[in-house]
Amino acid sequence: MKGAMLHVEPSLRIVDVTHLVDPQDVMGAAFVLRQVIPFYPEGTVHLAVVDPDVGSARLPIAGRFEGHLFVGPDNGLLSLLLQGSQPDEVVVLDRRSFWRTERPARTFNARDLFGPVAAHLASGRELDEVGTPTDTFRRLHWAHPLADDEGVQGFVVHIDRFGNCVTNISREILENDPRSRRAKCYVGSTIIEGVHNTYTDVPKGEPLALVGSSNYLEVGVHGGDAATLLTIHKGSPVSLVYGDE
Amino acid sequence: MKGAMLHVEPSLRIVDVTHLVDPQDVMGAAFVLRQVIPFYPEGTVHLAVVDPDVGSARLPIAGRFEGHLFVGPDNGLLSLLLQGSQPDEVVVLDRRSFWRTERPARTFNARDLFGPVAAHLASGRELDEVGTPTDTFRRLHWAHPLADDEGVQGFVVHIDRFGNCVTNISREILENDPRSRRAKCYVGSTIIEGVHNTYTDVPKGEPLALVGSSNYLEVGVHGGDAATLLTIHKGSPVSLVYGDE
Amino acid sequence: MKGAMLHVEPSLRIVDVTHLVDPQDVMGAAFVLRQVIPFYPEGTVHLAVVDPDVGSARLPIAGRFEGHLFVGPDNGLLSLLLQGSQPDEVVVLDRRSFWRTERPARTFNARDLFGPVAAHLASGRELDEVGTPTDTFRRLHWAHPLADDEGVQGFVVHIDRFGNCVTNISREILENDPRSRRAKCYVGSTIIEGVHNTYTDVPKGEPLALVGSSNYLEVGVHGGDAATLLTIHKGSPVSLVYGDE
Repeated sequence: MKGAMLHVEPSLRIVDVTHLVDPQDVMGAAFVLRQVIPFYPEGTVHLAVVDPDVGSARLPIAGRFEGHLFVGPDNGLLSLLLQGSQPDEVVVLDRRSFWRTERPARTFNARDLFGPVAAHLASGRELDEVGTPTDTFRRLHWAHPLADDEGVQGFVVHIDRFGNCVTNISREILENDPRSRRAKCYVGSTIIEGVHNTYTDVPKGEPLALVGSSNYLEVGVHGGDAATLLTIHKGSPVSLVYGDE
Repeated sequence: MKGAMLHVEPSLRIVDVTHLVDPQDVMGAAFVLRQVIPFYPEGTVHLAVVDPDVGSARLPIAGRFEGHLFVGPDNGLLSLLLQGSQPDEVVVLDRRSFWRTERPARTFNARDLFGPVAAHLASGRELDEVGTPTDTFRRLHWAHPLADDEGVQGFVVHIDRFGNCVTNISREILENDPRSRRAKCYVGSTIIEGVHNTYTDVPKGEPLALVGSSNYLEVGVHGGDAATLLTIHKGSPVSLVYGDE
Repeated sequence: MKGAMLHVEPSLRIVDVTHLVDPQDVMGAAFVLRQVIPFYPEGTVHLAVVDPDVGSARLPIAGRFEGHLFVGPDNGLLSLLLQGSQPDEVVVLDRRSFWRTERPARTFNARDLFGPVAAHLASGRELDEVGTPTDTFRRLHWAHPLADDEGVQGFVVHIDRFGNCVTNISREILENDPRSRRAKCYVGSTIIEGVHNTYTDVPKGEPLALVGSSNYLEVGVHGGDAATLLTIHKGSPVSLVYGDE
């Protein structure tokens, strides 16, 4: 894929965002990409080809929002990135002259279609040159946690390479209720007291819940691998239960 | 190695093709490299230092074929890339002024010899500047599958990170016999009916044989990891048996 | 982090040195970085954020030595790189205008502080622009092996991806005693005779001790993974015992 992109424009600057998204994990890819997009310069083209349906009728699309460009299959990832807001522009990638070949391999659209189109966009082509405007794209709704007067119920959406377990419970949800800072956090067979700001708030080897740099509630172990030590998996339920004041 | 290359020419554009070739696996490296070479721009320098014999008398070489340059130890990889055709030019890398040091570390020729020479070639030096023309280089013959009137016998040469198992049975061999599309594929203890074009031709979780973007017969599982699910390893035999018409 | 760096200067050339340092392993990171620094061009900025104490009071620092720049937390890594010599300049990174934000996330200083400062330095800013000169930084002393008239006692500090086990016993120590070339090397339950120069000095599958491209004593297996085959771990003791002449 990188070869096909450099074929379009040899001076491209290609950055690998991660090598750690599991195969077929659209939601995990959306989580990682959503974290990094705001830190890249405006105009960056984000190419994300997690494509469980490659070879089927799903459409190739590209879009623009908040000054960033996005290229990939219409698998719901774009809607996860948007988080409810509207894109400025979405196109179906139907201009085969911007593909590597008019007959792309059915199992390698990244190389034959998405990569070359992303390279053309990074080289200054406009969205409406490489595709046809559309209003319809697949919308997935990022699974929202359940919050009520008793607490918040969510789940683990991402485990980083240190073993920290990031949930879908956002900083905003926690800030809605002042009791959340002293809540009990249930995950697997572990009960953790309180929500902290950083790993060094607890002794080495101790588990903790914190709102980290991702702005989501994480479960970690200071200096350790929480996923292994606490037997937490992607999808594990995480409950925050408020106590009495 | 990258540091030593950027020392030669700080404006080099270095692309990591893969981090997934097993140590010492010359044939696996050849398979990956052969897949990507045609997609890179002409004049690209491909540096491949799978070098089980580092420190022995094997020679360092470089070559040109189909507009691409190749640098590496004389371990047979070049002949696997050529697939029977002749290179336009091959040289022995014997001009020490293009190395990082005249006395390279015996266990790290990539840093001290191959990387710097590749950097010089990428910066515009000619093959006959960095080495002396030769006709003799090590020729390995890519293991060919056995094909007869009953079917084709091959083996798995590469397992990608999704667990798809790529064999040495090429699209051309299959197209030689129209019965191949409806053949039975035996791999491990699994029997698969027919040869498909894409993963979505079968329901999720089902195994299938297909000719994928590599142009070789692959064994996969739609949405799953075939190597794990079907207990297939690199080297596992794969048999395609024709039925009656 | 890369996004935040390219935000500062889109034309930066970023090279990933390794993805194989264990989380929190300051000594392992120092070992890898010390190996590569001399091969990069002078003026290279080396960004190393192994940061077990992120979010605590440890200071962010940057320094210059032997024409190379270094950016990271004050965790002792710099002193390991220096190996006893003095840096030309060290500063505390206290100029928040060079950070991504004046209030960096407590758990992601790499993105919010170290990356942006490294990008500014790579773009030509001086150390005394981005920080305030200091003389005090944390000094760790690279664990030295014990050498006496009987032999040398050290330990494994790094295992590379081929399974070769690199110790803290340097070439200099071995060259101090001519008997070291014929010493017995004890590691785990294996006893190896003599110290070699390259893997091909022994038959395939045989273990050996050698002084490799790292200039430290390594334990390896010709064509095999020594760490797995000989059950060697990071931290495993390695003893070199001199015999009679």
